[in-house]
Amino acid sequence: MLNPDLVSFMERHFPAWRNLTPEQREALVQNTVEVSYKKGSCVHGAESECVGVLIIRKGMLRTYLLSEEGREITLFRMGAGDTCVLSASCVLNAISFDVHIDAEEDTEALLIYAAHFSRLKEQNIYVECETYKLAAERFSDVMWAMQQILFTSMDKRLAVYIWDELSKTGGDTLRQTHEQIARHIGSAREVVSRMLKYFASEGIVELSRGGIKVLDKIKLKALT
Amino acid sequence: MLNPDLVSFMERHFPAWRNLTPEQREALVQNTVEVSYKKGSCVHGAESECVGVLIIRKGMLRTYLLSEEGREITLFRMGAGDTCVLSASCVLNAISFDVHIDAEEDTEALLIYAAHFSRLKEQNIYVECETYKLAAERFSDVMWAMQQILFTSMDKRLAVYIWDELSKTGGDTLRQTHEQIARHIGSAREVVSRMLKYFASEGIVELSRGGIKVLDKIKLKALT
Repeated sequence: MLNPDLVSFMERHFPAWRNLTPEQREALVQNTVEVSYKKGSCVHGAESECVGVLIIRKGMLRTYLLSEEGREITLFRMGAGDTCVLSASCVLNAISFDVHIDAEEDTEALLIYAAHFSRLKEQNIYVECETYKLAAERFSDVMWAMQQILFTSMDKRLAVYIWDELSKTGGDTLRQTHEQIARHIGSAREVVSRMLKYFASEGIVELSRGGIKVLDKIKLKALT
Repeated sequence: MLNPDLVSFMERHFPAWRNLTPEQREALVQNTVEVSYKKGSCVHGAESECVGVLIIRKGMLRTYLLSEEGREITLFRMGAGDTCVLSASCVLNAISFDVHIDAEEDTEALLIYAAHFSRLKEQNIYVECETYKLAAERFSDVMWAMQQILFTSMDKRLAVYIWDELSKTGGDTLRQTHEQIARHIGSAREVVSRMLKYFASEGIVELSRGGIKVLDKIKLKALT
């Protein structure tokens, strides 16, 4: 008898669940484990072993590119209910790149082992199809990120970032270091610090040890 | 009776042909037309109508992003035998971005109308699966391009470009304007001109109206 909680979660979040045979469902559950990642830990890296498919129950994963010099470019984030397939790129023939994935918050997920997932996807066309469909959704995210990084000027990019982050939390203060912000918007700390000083001189924000407090939301919005 | 040439081409290049019913094959052929594009013409743009799936018989298509200011970033190229699905992004729910596609050479292709392709993909899971798989391959190309653009320094990027282009043609002279090169490597004309002058001052290339002649292949290779 399968764990009803797990089955109900799979029904909602494993894309091809309804197209699995009873045997495939049972085998899938047997090859799925609960995993947790501490905030800041590495989930998947270019050199690490192939993890498998992750279905996030709680927390947040961040996917990014890493240059040889250590520069990071955030591609997209995934939260509760999202299914991460790029962590199983080793078993997806059409995907020939590797990204880094970190836990941005303490994260709990279901992990379907790569080897089992690979077999399942060969047995069941719906699994393969849904997997590539999920990859295509991420492709869309990456294209969005790429356009932001390549085409948006820095003041606008920073303003959009501050605006979006505060919209999530609802407050008026962003408690992140310049280094963290630079990572998220694909820039350098010095550039972010310089631009924030400019924002402060314009009366848009106030800078302190505690973070960045927005003083003039209208001016900030106008930049976005 | 279906045109045997067309059928034989479809068998080789339409990914899910072998999984179509005879009726689906016939309907597909009836909804496929031969198209040709003159060098330089627009195949698919952000504002243009949804073209459909293109199977290239001859020539070369270039896919790129275009900024509001007119800056272009080349993402990938497709040649004979390649199937272009991003020109049918309107019927792919998981793809929410739009790219520009131009004919880089005089190009001949088979075009499957978007509306028919959409119906076929809903009837036949293999068609949907192969389409998203092709999209995932392009995702890989885009990730490669993104890493080149974001992480490779300009001298290296330019040297790699010249090296690769000459490897294709076999000569020692690249007959392209600085503007064209800048487009291909996602840079500005001024940056390319400056870097080429530097290459010339190092004795790596010789610049003339006719193009860029490589004088020192060893030095050029060392930069790549």
